[in-house]
Parts: sequence; C-alpha cells; structure tokens
Amino acid sequence: MHAITIPEPGGPEALVWAEVPDPVPGEGEVLVDVVSSAVNRADVLQRQGFYNPPAGASPYPGLECAGRVSALGPGVVGWSVGDEVCALLAGGGYAEKVAVPVGQLLPVPEGLDLTLAAALPEVTATVWSNVFMVAHLRPAETLLIHGGSSGIGTMAIQLAKAVGARVAVTAGGPEKLARCAELGADILIDYREQDFVDELRKATDGAGADVILDIVGAKYLDRNVRALAVNGRLAIIGLQGGAKGELNLGALLTKRAAVTATSLRGRPLAEKAAIVAAVREHVWPLIADGVVRPVVDRTLPMRDAAEAHRVMESSTHIGKVLLQAPTTV
Amino acid sequence: MHAITIPEPGGPEALVWAEVPDPVPGEGEVLVDVVSSAVNRADVLQRQGFYNPPAGASPYPGLECAGRVSALGPGVVGWSVGDEVCALLAGGGYAEKVAVPVGQLLPVPEGLDLTLAAALPEVTATVWSNVFMVAHLRPAETLLIHGGSSGIGTMAIQLAKAVGARVAVTAGGPEKLARCAELGADILIDYREQDFVDELRKATDGAGADVILDIVGAKYLDRNVRALAVNGRLAIIGLQGGAKGELNLGALLTKRAAVTATSLRGRPLAEKAAIVAAVREHVWPLIADGVVRPVVDRTLPMRDAAEAHRVMESSTHIGKVLLQAPTTV
Repeated sequence: MHAITIPEPGGPEALVWAEVPDPVPGEGEVLVDVVSSAVNRADVLQRQGFYNPPAGASPYPGLECAGRVSALGPGVVGWSVGDEVCALLAGGGYAEKVAVPVGQLLPVPEGLDLTLAAALPEVTATVWSNVFMVAHLRPAETLLIHGGSSGIGTMAIQLAKAVGARVAVTAGGPEKLARCAELGADILIDYREQDFVDELRKATDGAGADVILDIVGAKYLDRNVRALAVNGRLAIIGLQGGAKGELNLGALLTKRAAVTATSLRGRPLAEKAAIVAAVREHVWPLIADGVVRPVVDRTLPMRDAAEAHRVMESSTHIGKVLLQAPTTV
Repeated sequence: MHAITIPEPGGPEALVWAEVPDPVPGEGEVLVDVVSSAVNRADVLQRQGFYNPPAGASPYPGLECAGRVSALGPGVVGWSVGDEVCALLAGGGYAEKVAVPVGQLLPVPEGLDLTLAAALPEVTATVWSNVFMVAHLRPAETLLIHGGSSGIGTMAIQLAKAVGARVAVTAGGPEKLARCAELGADILIDYREQDFVDELRKATDGAGADVILDIVGAKYLDRNVRALAVNGRLAIIGLQGGAKGELNLGALLTKRAAVTATSLRGRPLAEKAAIVAAVREHVWPLIADGVVRPVVDRTLPMRDAAEAHRVMESSTHIGKVLLQAPTTV
C-alpha cells in the first residue's frame, strides 16, 4: 500500500507519499481500506518530531479514518468484511490501509457520506470525553470553547447546544465567529480584539463559565481560572500556548474549581473503547437525526497532505480538513 | 452567653473570652447549647485577620461543635430540644450557644462521648467531600495524605483504609509517623528527611498516587503533580505553602490528571447539607462500629482557646485539639 511517511521531521514538505508494507490486523483488530482521513494538530507536531506515536502504534500520521472493513484479525466478532466504518486511531490514518482495534470502530452514522465520516472520530471522542465524561457539562450551564471554529470547536458548539447548555466561543475574526454563531454559539468573543475574561463576565452577569474547553494551555491558564464560575471545570486538551504556567490556587480554592488535562492518543485501549462506546450511544443518534453535523473546510487528495498541513498551520480553515485516499478519487 | 471574640486580629492573645448576645435561631435553624468545639487551621487564619467569616456567619471562630439542641427556629422538623448533636458551622463554635442550619446537624454517633463528637464534623466532611465525592478514591487505589498526623490526616487514613485503599502519609518525625501507622497507614514518609516523590515511587513500583490530599498548595504543586499516577487526582484543601505555583500542564496532560481545590466553609447551605448527608450515610456507621475513631490530642477549657491555638501553631499535636465549654466543666 501507500502511506504518508515522515523520513525526517520538518515542515509540511517532510510528508512523503511512499510505498510501504501493508499492515496486518492483530488479535482483536480489523483491517480497514481507508477512504478518507483527517488532519489534526497532533499530526503537525508528529511531523515536526515533537510527538512520537505511542508504543505499538503505526509510525504514519493520522488519528482517524473512514473506510471499509477488508479483513478480520483473530477473535473479532460483531464486524464483517465490507462494513462501512469510521475509526479512532493511534496513528496510520494517512494510508491506504490501517489496522484498527475493534473498540475504536464506529459504524458510519445513518445518512452520512462515507468520506465525511472521517471528520468525526477525533472530535466527537475528544469533546464527549472531556466536556461530558470528565467535566460533566449539564443543561443550562455555560461552556466556553477556545478556538470555536476549529474541528473540535465546531463539534463542541453543536454537542453543547444539543444538551441544552449555553455556549461561548473565542475565535479570530468576524468570519469565524459568524460560522460559530450559525452552529449555535450564544456568546461570540474575538480574541484578537477583546479580553475573553471581561467579555464572558459581561455576558454571564459576572458568573463566568462552568466548563472551559481549552487548547492553549499555559498562556491562558491564569485567565481561564479567572473566567471560571464557582464549581467550574477547566478541561485542557492542547498546549498550543505552552506547557508550564502559574496557577492561582487561591482563586481555584475560592471557586472550588478543577483543572484537568487529557490526551486521547495515549489512553489505553480499554479507555478508548469506553469513550468510543459513549460516543456511539450519545453522539451518533444526534448525527443520524441531523442535529449535529461534521463541519468540513475542504477535502484534499491524501498525497497532498503537505498542503493540508499548510492549511492547518495557517489557521484559516473552519472545521476539519479531510484527506481522500487515492483508490476512491 | 460567653464566646471567644477577636477584638483585634493578632497572635493567640487576640482571643478574648467575653460576654456577648445570645444567637437567635433563624428559619430552618436550631439553637445548640455547646458542650465542646474544636480548633481548625482556618480559626488561626481568622484570628490573624486573613480569613473573614462568610456573609451571614457568626463573627466568632469555631467551625464545628457538639452539644444539645435547646431551641428550634421556625420551620424545623426532625429535631427536638434535648437532642445530642454535633454540627458543621460557618463560625461561632467557640461559644456557649450557636445557631445551626439543620442541614449541618448530625446526631452523635452511637457509643461516642458527646464531648468527643466535636472532633468529627470538619474532618469527616472535608475528607469525605474531597477524597470520595470530588476525587472518587476507589478500593485498591493509593491515597497520599500530606500531614498524616493532623486532624484531617488521622481521619483520612482511617476512612481510606476502611474502603480498602492503600494509604501513604507524610509527617514530620518518627513519633507522628508511628501514630499514622497505628491508624493503618501503609507507606510512611518523613518529609523532614525524605523526598516524598521518590519514596512514593519506590513504594508503588513507579506508579504514584491515584489521589493526593494536600494542605500545602503552591510549595508542593510541582512535586504533587510528579507524584500523581496516570488518571491521578490532586485535591488541595489548604494553602499553608502559598497560593500561586507553577503547574506543569504537560505532565498533567500526559497523566490525564486533575487538580482540584476546595474549601468547605464558603459552600452554600445546600452543598454543605449534601456533604453532611453523605457523611451521615457513609461515615457514621463506621464510627458506630468502632472501625473509625476521632483522634484527639487534648481537650482544653474553651476560655483557654489562646493556648489551644499555640498548640495548633506549634504543630506538635496529633489529631484534634478540643475546647470544652464552661457549663460542662
């Protein structure tokens, strides 16, 4: 098969489409013929040499895919050759084939185009596990989403609205904020022009956010704690603004608040399977009903992954950037 | 009645036994004739002028008491004059009488001396709410308790052992550690001589603590994060080592860990009532069975509260320091 390889870490041009051995599905895995994959920030870090795949994972980038089951490893039940699926991956999505543990497989939601299904696994698993399973967002609470127009952000807006929460977003510029508003965001904050702590306070009568979904890390840590409501939960899923920051424990204690930080990729199989099962139970019906939709910025040929990374790094996109495998082009 | 008043913040001598008006029980409150109260770190801060009572609370120190119900405010059901009780207070325990919201009342556990019951409300509510309700300590997990010989620590050891967890403690010196061991602590760390991160790693095959109950705050923040296991929860309940510290979000994210900080005193009535109800359900039977006991260092006359504060500040005590009201001496 072919896959995007990274012979040497570097810029987007470090991504090289090359012939590589086919993966072989192990115990409890299926082989998926990939129709599409999608780009995540972690792929950029991996390309730059800052985020090595966990032990046992494919060396190729790509944390999600959609496609068709083409072979079953030993001990697999409940899935058949030909099934249309999408999957959460520890790596290897930028390829024509990938081996997937069955706990990370999802059926393609009813009524959704197979190619588009590659936009779902990472964002639904990340948002559901953090906003709902870790931070327990409840109806009528306020969720602040940093990067509301990202793949994660566009899904978080829709899921939070679907459960009856109030949604605040930060994004850069009016075009991205307008798209967030179309998806249901109630409070729109342009981080280039406005202070999100002040704006959120104004919009919530001083109460702040019950849950914050953050991709910035250190640079926003102090402001995020200030923006939290009493009993607030700050869920950090990215460190784009640095890894070490000063935490005001006095403010945290007064608010009886919590700071959590997670990543999906490093979780053991059983935890990933539990998250995928929760996504299937809670999110899939919302997608089948059309209440929640994947937001796709563009779809590029997989061999042009370098261009897709340039788009991701320019931060001009809204929603997901997909990669289409050559067999389906 | 008489109460310990604080005419001017300062050292232990700032505590003055004086005649003051009797409290009047409001809607949903009872009046308790106090038999005993107990000293908490927060009382020392209040005496020093650093911790003002929350709005509506008694101006006198004292976050817990034991005694007898002597009058019922409007709307009180389920309690009668003469009932022997102990209570979680927002203040006013260092006094002959105190008005208490019924949600913060507990019956004296079967078989326990009334005076000793004053040792229970703060430590049981603090430990149960943080270690179990917030941090969800589970059987076979490891709990690290900083200050294992304190009132909080001695209760946390016993409750964690009672649910089948493994317990590590830090304390200053062999005498305090020996007392922790008698109460069931499995891993004993002398913080004066040993690095708790190293010792905990050695004792847990490198895994670390699933839950840490911390009273130090900033000074221990980085080491506590290093001492956490994967999926670990750091529950901060005191800031004896400062309020602002550097948080390594990278380490937190790799471990998928959480930092929480809470205080009991500032919680609204409904939250306090929920905690007290949980304590009554889960902790009271363990005390009635003799599995868990209050650990009392000494009992002093209430008018000698200054001496009790000197003991607390010297950190030579093990367990709780109680104050006995004059009517019962």
